[in-house]
Amino acid sequence: MSEHIDLNADLGETTAGNPVADDAAMLEMVSSANVATGFHAGDPHSIKGTLVDAKRSNVTVGAHIAYKDPAGFGRRFIDYDPAELADETLYQIGALDALARAQGLEVRYVKPHGALYNTIVHHDKHAQAVIDGIKAFGDLPVMLLPGGAAVDIAEKAGLRVIREAFADRGYNPDGTLVSRREPNAVMTDAQQVAERVLQVASTGAVTAIDGSIVDVAAESVCVHGDSPGSVELTRSVVAKLQDEGIEIRSFL
Amino acid sequence: MSEHIDLNADLGETTAGNPVADDAAMLEMVSSANVATGFHAGDPHSIKGTLVDAKRSNVTVGAHIAYKDPAGFGRRFIDYDPAELADETLYQIGALDALARAQGLEVRYVKPHGALYNTIVHHDKHAQAVIDGIKAFGDLPVMLLPGGAAVDIAEKAGLRVIREAFADRGYNPDGTLVSRREPNAVMTDAQQVAERVLQVASTGAVTAIDGSIVDVAAESVCVHGDSPGSVELTRSVVAKLQDEGIEIRSFL
Amino acid sequence: MSEHIDLNADLGETTAGNPVADDAAMLEMVSSANVATGFHAGDPHSIKGTLVDAKRSNVTVGAHIAYKDPAGFGRRFIDYDPAELADETLYQIGALDALARAQGLEVRYVKPHGALYNTIVHHDKHAQAVIDGIKAFGDLPVMLLPGGAAVDIAEKAGLRVIREAFADRGYNPDGTLVSRREPNAVMTDAQQVAERVLQVASTGAVTAIDGSIVDVAAESVCVHGDSPGSVELTRSVVAKLQDEGIEIRSFL
Amino acid sequence: MSEHIDLNADLGETTAGNPVADDAAMLEMVSSANVATGFHAGDPHSIKGTLVDAKRSNVTVGAHIAYKDPAGFGRRFIDYDPAELADETLYQIGALDALARAQGLEVRYVKPHGALYNTIVHHDKHAQAVIDGIKAFGDLPVMLLPGGAAVDIAEKAGLRVIREAFADRGYNPDGTLVSRREPNAVMTDAQQVAERVLQVASTGAVTAIDGSIVDVAAESVCVHGDSPGSVELTRSVVAKLQDEGIEIRSFL
Repeated sequence: MSEHIDLNADLGETTAGNPVADDAAMLEMVSSANVATGFHAGDPHSIKGTLVDAKRSNVTVGAHIAYKDPAGFGRRFIDYDPAELADETLYQIGALDALARAQGLEVRYVKPHGALYNTIVHHDKHAQAVIDGIKAFGDLPVMLLPGGAAVDIAEKAGLRVIREAFADRGYNPDGTLVSRREPNAVMTDAQQVAERVLQVASTGAVTAIDGSIVDVAAESVCVHGDSPGSVELTRSVVAKLQDEGIEIRSFL
Repeated sequence: MSEHIDLNADLGETTAGNPVADDAAMLEMVSSANVATGFHAGDPHSIKGTLVDAKRSNVTVGAHIAYKDPAGFGRRFIDYDPAELADETLYQIGALDALARAQGLEVRYVKPHGALYNTIVHHDKHAQAVIDGIKAFGDLPVMLLPGGAAVDIAEKAGLRVIREAFADRGYNPDGTLVSRREPNAVMTDAQQVAERVLQVASTGAVTAIDGSIVDVAAESVCVHGDSPGSVELTRSVVAKLQDEGIEIRSFL
Repeated sequence: MSEHIDLNADLGETTAGNPVADDAAMLEMVSSANVATGFHAGDPHSIKGTLVDAKRSNVTVGAHIAYKDPAGFGRRFIDYDPAELADETLYQIGALDALARAQGLEVRYVKPHGALYNTIVHHDKHAQAVIDGIKAFGDLPVMLLPGGAAVDIAEKAGLRVIREAFADRGYNPDGTLVSRREPNAVMTDAQQVAERVLQVASTGAVTAIDGSIVDVAAESVCVHGDSPGSVELTRSVVAKLQDEGIEIRSFL
Repeated sequence: MSEHIDLNADLGETTAGNPVADDAAMLEMVSSANVATGFHAGDPHSIKGTLVDAKRSNVTVGAHIAYKDPAGFGRRFIDYDPAELADETLYQIGALDALARAQGLEVRYVKPHGALYNTIVHHDKHAQAVIDGIKAFGDLPVMLLPGGAAVDIAEKAGLRVIREAFADRGYNPDGTLVSRREPNAVMTDAQQVAERVLQVASTGAVTAIDGSIVDVAAESVCVHGDSPGSVELTRSVVAKLQDEGIEIRSFL
């Protein structure tokens, strides 16, 4: 049996005509696209453009839901009433799904963005609200950081959880990410990053900064395209995966 | 055969916790609710509340699409690129439809709001964009001012057009509404307003301010609930319709 | 020496043409107006209208600064970077001051709104950011809940603190407000409310729900105008103050 | 007497942490900065960063006022009520001026942005509203396209008008810009662009695409920094100006 891995990237974040990532380039490489819904970034017309490219490249589309905070790019915790968060989750998925269906696609999974992604690791009420909002739409898989409240709540609710690893982030021995304030937070060496992806593809585990092996049971690896450097890095990682005979394909 | 008429009202416009209309009271009277989508007013959670009440009262739900202008309540023309307007139309319908389906409802028609409603009477490109956006979602009926560009474009595109009359507005002999700057713009007498609705129910026509009869072929009559006075006015109009044996029921 | 007290109210919160309070009525009664800056509510044109009325009624104008959250009416904590919060504080004061100066007024004090008001009681970094933002504009007095981080930081920075009491809220023996979820949270009896204001005017203290006296050292009392009932309540409180010979005048 | 010219650029447009131009690089080259106010782009904290750099580089700061349209980057006409536009103009100048004063700077002129810049060439009411808003703040110079309604209204109101030429745009013989849909709309050759700037510095005139000389009486030339290419182009233009002994200095 040949090995394979899902690569996902955050796309559709163009705002006010200013692109944040090279969506077209990334869509030729990844198998899953976390597409913004207009709440942290993106607008319906630029999102549509990303969906057209996703369709052409046969990439699986997920809803990259967020706190409604375009000024903060969804990177700030907002103390929502959980009922509001659940309804905003549903609203975002429905809006993106309508745009996707017009291109012959549909929303196939959900990934929380930024502060929401990090908050629901420990904030039970927001985690429950996100899962409630997803289930109000349908039983879509949800892409999450392994460990934490949201994983448990999602699985209890009967949703498939796609555990995610990060291609270029350092890991602590307990499976958490090294803080961006620390020296080992981000890896920039293409060979090192490719080895991380290969390791996840083969074993679902990552090697932490102290050399220990952490089983994160990851089914997908997040790559970035929001700078010329990150696109290039992804390109060389993809080339190495191809050399190794690892197929890049959606988790679905 | 008993006579009947559709009454529609603009609802779901609560913003930042501040209600604009008495949605619950109105939903006990009307047969169709033009529900805001968050673009000119409303937020997903308050909209959900309106949908719960609409379900309980068995009221047909339409998407009250708008230019994205919460600061201006959708009352200002914005010179959108038509492609953006089409995609925003689709986004709004999809978002509201997801909220509606979670309540066992669905979006059954579309009504443009405010400046968008008035603009597409004469602005061919914005009219076409709205119709394109609706068709990208599905062949929903569209509620419009009789006459003008949008009606023609919608019918050419194969959409059912619901022509609308206004319960409390004065009409010029050419079928346009008397400007709000003129003395006869708005009628506040319940008997007069009820007679307008009865006339539309019987004949689809309205009597203009000069006494002439204008055939607007209306299938629905718009009533208001955005002030205590307007709720009371609607209540007495509804009582008079019941006295006359006119059934209030959706155009569907 | 005659007794006197400052009455303050939250005004200028009209949004998208929909008024939240009866600003004109309130401005005939209060001595200080906490005027919204457009961040939680209000827009420059409606704010201007409130300022025109404030000028006519000779009411002192303060900047009612907030987290930038019109969708949530400034009632939700947002996890701002403190440097952003300081700069937004300065921006808001400058914007309102320009509108005020065009009416022959100026911003004479600052009062944080909603979630920001409550957060800086305990959140040192946000409290410091607000004080930094104010001082970047100038040494304006700041109106705060007695006790807590912001009071200490403001006084350490050399700003005058105006401690505020609430006309219609129940107090716990420790000087905190009774939660709105408790039965004694809000007082609606005009006589009781007037006695609260008289007590503050005479002594700066309030009587808590257990009958104990709490010295909050208040120089101003907050009254509300955001419902017909609250305007009426304020009207009868003002009448009782006049009967008692208490002058309503600004703390300045 | 040595020749000189003012170079101005649109800066402070970073939004949600995503920069639009290389502000630091541009501020080392230009003499005037049109700084965004948060209405079409920019947020108080990123704007502050631009002001710090402007102070260091001794660059004159202007308020780059706009229709409030962050989603459209201020590029779409919005049919404002003129009274709203005047008050929003004043609000923007006051907000930016407060940020500037905290850095030891002040707003020294006003330049309308995008759709507002183009609209007030022909829209008398919006032109008057902008001028009214500026005058409510103070008699600041206003930077405008030569010709058109706003120039006349500003001069009638007693404001100094800074007529502006564009470094890299083709001109029609009547002094209007060649539409971006036409082939000669934008010049990308550094020598050609430098010659344009030299011509403006010497004569205030530009050569149109048919070779005719158009006197636009320009006192300032607009350069761009919103792409790596445009920064490089500006750099080589500046070098050529220095070679020719042309001083780059503010119009003030």
